[in-house]
Amino acid sequence: MKRTTYAGLVDEKYLGQEVVLKGWVQKSRNLGNLIFADLRDREGLVQLVFSHEISEEAFKIAETLKSEYVIEIVGKVVGRAENAVNPNMKTGKIEVETSKVTILNEAKTTPFSIEDDTTATDDTRLRYRYLDLRRPEMQRSLMIRNRITQTVHRYLDENHFLDIETPYLTRSTPEGARDYLVPSRVYPGHFYALPQSPQLFKQLLMGAGYDRYYQIARCFRDEDLRGDRQPEFTQIDMEMSFMTADEIREMTEGLLKAVMKETLGIEIETPIKQITWNEAMDRFGSDKPDIRFGMELQDMAEVVKGAGFKVFDSALENGGQVKAIVVPGGADKYSRKKIEEKQEYIKRFGAKGLAWMKVTDEGLAGPVSKFFKEKEAEVKEATGAKAGDLLLFVADNRKVVADSLGYLRVSIAKELDLIDNSKFAFIWVVDWPLFEYSEEFERYIAAHHPFTMPNEEDLDLLETDPHKCHAQSYDIVLNGYELGGGSIRIHRRDIQEKMFKALGFTKESAEAQFGWFMEALDYGFPPHGGLALGLDRFAMLLAGKDNIREVIAFPKNSKASEPLTNAPSTVSEKQLEELYLRTENK
Amino acid sequence: MKRTTYAGLVDEKYLGQEVVLKGWVQKSRNLGNLIFADLRDREGLVQLVFSHEISEEAFKIAETLKSEYVIEIVGKVVGRAENAVNPNMKTGKIEVETSKVTILNEAKTTPFSIEDDTTATDDTRLRYRYLDLRRPEMQRSLMIRNRITQTVHRYLDENHFLDIETPYLTRSTPEGARDYLVPSRVYPGHFYALPQSPQLFKQLLMGAGYDRYYQIARCFRDEDLRGDRQPEFTQIDMEMSFMTADEIREMTEGLLKAVMKETLGIEIETPIKQITWNEAMDRFGSDKPDIRFGMELQDMAEVVKGAGFKVFDSALENGGQVKAIVVPGGADKYSRKKIEEKQEYIKRFGAKGLAWMKVTDEGLAGPVSKFFKEKEAEVKEATGAKAGDLLLFVADNRKVVADSLGYLRVSIAKELDLIDNSKFAFIWVVDWPLFEYSEEFERYIAAHHPFTMPNEEDLDLLETDPHKCHAQSYDIVLNGYELGGGSIRIHRRDIQEKMFKALGFTKESAEAQFGWFMEALDYGFPPHGGLALGLDRFAMLLAGKDNIREVIAFPKNSKASEPLTNAPSTVSEKQLEELYLRTENK
Repeated sequence: MKRTTYAGLVDEKYLGQEVVLKGWVQKSRNLGNLIFADLRDREGLVQLVFSHEISEEAFKIAETLKSEYVIEIVGKVVGRAENAVNPNMKTGKIEVETSKVTILNEAKTTPFSIEDDTTATDDTRLRYRYLDLRRPEMQRSLMIRNRITQTVHRYLDENHFLDIETPYLTRSTPEGARDYLVPSRVYPGHFYALPQSPQLFKQLLMGAGYDRYYQIARCFRDEDLRGDRQPEFTQIDMEMSFMTADEIREMTEGLLKAVMKETLGIEIETPIKQITWNEAMDRFGSDKPDIRFGMELQDMAEVVKGAGFKVFDSALENGGQVKAIVVPGGADKYSRKKIEEKQEYIKRFGAKGLAWMKVTDEGLAGPVSKFFKEKEAEVKEATGAKAGDLLLFVADNRKVVADSLGYLRVSIAKELDLIDNSKFAFIWVVDWPLFEYSEEFERYIAAHHPFTMPNEEDLDLLETDPHKCHAQSYDIVLNGYELGGGSIRIHRRDIQEKMFKALGFTKESAEAQFGWFMEALDYGFPPHGGLALGLDRFAMLLAGKDNIREVIAFPKNSKASEPLTNAPSTVSEKQLEELYLRTENK
Repeated sequence: MKRTTYAGLVDEKYLGQEVVLKGWVQKSRNLGNLIFADLRDREGLVQLVFSHEISEEAFKIAETLKSEYVIEIVGKVVGRAENAVNPNMKTGKIEVETSKVTILNEAKTTPFSIEDDTTATDDTRLRYRYLDLRRPEMQRSLMIRNRITQTVHRYLDENHFLDIETPYLTRSTPEGARDYLVPSRVYPGHFYALPQSPQLFKQLLMGAGYDRYYQIARCFRDEDLRGDRQPEFTQIDMEMSFMTADEIREMTEGLLKAVMKETLGIEIETPIKQITWNEAMDRFGSDKPDIRFGMELQDMAEVVKGAGFKVFDSALENGGQVKAIVVPGGADKYSRKKIEEKQEYIKRFGAKGLAWMKVTDEGLAGPVSKFFKEKEAEVKEATGAKAGDLLLFVADNRKVVADSLGYLRVSIAKELDLIDNSKFAFIWVVDWPLFEYSEEFERYIAAHHPFTMPNEEDLDLLETDPHKCHAQSYDIVLNGYELGGGSIRIHRRDIQEKMFKALGFTKESAEAQFGWFMEALDYGFPPHGGLALGLDRFAMLLAGKDNIREVIAFPKNSKASEPLTNAPSTVSEKQLEELYLRTENK
């Protein structure tokens, strides 16, 4: 029989009607002459009632029902007695008097129960992912992700974008993160690589005149995993020709507005605020500022200079900075021990220490306060600190100060619950440096990627002083997370050549690796630019989760394996032989 | 300046207006005092006019324009003189008096010209794919593909399907085609596999209660390439719970109807005709019948029996068949030599010969006609052949007869141009055998895959005589191509176990390979089924092409390599070491 509607959608408008429903038994209660069972499907629960009066046959079957049995029922929708109404359920005003029930499949007792509150470990959840995915919060999260996806398709189609697929079996490029490789059976010793992003292909599509491209594209990076990293992740990837950075941002804002509206019913204001990379680092100590709360970094150089505290003075003399954040009401909440823990933590950013003062009714307190007795008014004025607040200072070079105070600002705001989690605060970070220094490679690397166009006015610097160049690039930040980023790309061969040179390529090495792409630029590439949004992260933030695993149906665990199917696995000798491979087991 | 519209869309409604256009110079003609240039973008061409009167400056720049230069122009839309109107162009009634032109990028002379008629070889086209993709027919093809994709998203969203992504790094399963492998850096000697389809993951999603799933999913098979095969291809992948095969077909028909309407403006009739697999083999000699033309296979057993032609009689005595097709007007068009070529070709299907007769005004002609002199009227009546027709006979077992005549039917219809190429003829092929004999593996294999549900009434046969089982499976066929296929799946563990047994698995080998999946079936899987459509093939047919390379932006060539980026390539020693791999170069 054809289902009438989803169980979770049976409400008062079905009163008096006969319905056919199909789903899972959430639980059942046998009261002797009456059996209640909750029937679950992806839209929610509905209460079924069985009695001898309604149907003897159905009652007999109902006695055998266990949780997670799959059933089909026929019944009549009736109103519940006043005192039985459940205002927390969409279907809470009705129940279904069940005259017929068919068991479509039985179920063993599940290793954990199918409900939002679960004590199952992460590994158990992944091992039995098909059960974990039955939990309503997982279903809600994947439905939010689906709604984002649907909105992206609709909005970009309406705006004349073409969905064009680019290859997943591509060529390995040593620039950037580590590639996943795929051995070729046709060419011994040769490998494809899974793409880290469709960057060059989408640029080629602009060169080919497609004008507006997008793709919801899987990307792959073989890097060690952190909380919100996965070996494969998904990008909303867009590229446009003949558009300025402003026009690209405007288009993106339209997309974000549509997504927020259709997924959560939230109207966001556009245009979205912009902040330069420099200002973001100065005020928030971060290139992805969370602007849902204050606690901005205050430059204290003028105030602390010459007060006699050597650490501050010598930092300033060496061309460094002294900055502070104010922790509102932090004087009581942060003990010396807790502050020392923070101090320990920020050593990873290169900070040599964390100076602090508490503002009390009796004046400044704490170990370094003695240097600032006479400057109390000035300190308070510069920071806006009031009695009961805690002041945290870092004195060092710009990067260390920003990284340390940027971290402290966010971690303390979270600890003190200063962030309004119902807010969705977008901000553009613009005017990025073109290059950044990589400690890992001990040289300058591209801050975004080597195809990013420098600012018009910095084009000359590209040859003389490349590391001073800023770029026509932009990140979109949501609640302190980098949601996406993009740039105007280089469409002229001469600029692309200079870019590779600035990155340390020789003419030969650039040619060997990207010669085919530079040749393409010879044949009439239009000005173009684009943007990619992280779909996993976007869905995670809109679903209110803190790990992208919660919005991916079948993620890998933190060791890049998949406990359900047991991937990766060993393979047969024959498979390896066909690929001309031997493995060195260790 | 912001573009007013696409060059190819500037028509009479812009008359008198100033427009800003951006695109590529298709060609330019300098008449001395007047320069004409065609400006191209993805929507088409528009004619630009430059003259000393309109703008001296623009005229000077226009003199330097070459094909494929990228330009931006400002101009006024004016009507063309009566005799200059080009009725073949959407923009043929107007031209743009260009007052300003900016060269945005120059272009070298391209290795082939950017137009539909190209003499460039396939390899040149792939080597310069970004130029090949500029050709209008490639752009039209990729736009048709995009329109299919957009319609799929819209239709399935409206029908409550959820777009859910499944992993691309999965576990290798030896059943089926050859996997592409991806070595793991974390687990020495272990490999992920790229999925051949999301089959088990979509079934798990049904087990997890998502009810209606779809995904436009990339699939990977490391097989030797044929005309319409690629290492990676794309499936419109759907799965539904609690639906019968009829309901799944109805849903699919709605999708096909929407796609045909939105891509080509064609209304197709639904419900789409169904034919059983048996009938398709009998009448068309094919499990993917092209029903746009007749020439069906005629059973000639009753007519030819005992006529004295040994070949026919012994085939029938051995339990085989004698069948014929009529080639209308074929008597003149097929010489003995041409028929012998056909005979040679069908040897690959196991045919030992091809008997033929021509129907002439003087009766039957040809080497075997002497046996049928007395049966001429019967032969003509059974086949419907008229004077001038050619009769082709194959006598052998059922499979050889079907394969041979099925091939002859289609190849001859193409040669004689008997097929109406403007037609799009869909047909369902239903009630497939559950198993088919594989010459390659010398055993029975699953005709679709091991998760296909047998027909209700054949469930008992699964243990006693499995190879007689038919399945709840269905293919959708378009113009003689298998567009897609699907089935009701097995949702009960006991049936799945019997299925593996029938496929030759031991209890242990089934457990080792699919134990995790059979365990999932223990926990309450709903009845479910689905379907996958080949997007590449669908786009190819709607674009009127005969190779899926023509509807893929960056395909591999026939040797699975990609001549533009040169994938696959060798990789560094360091990359191999990190993966614990050594290659055996040959």
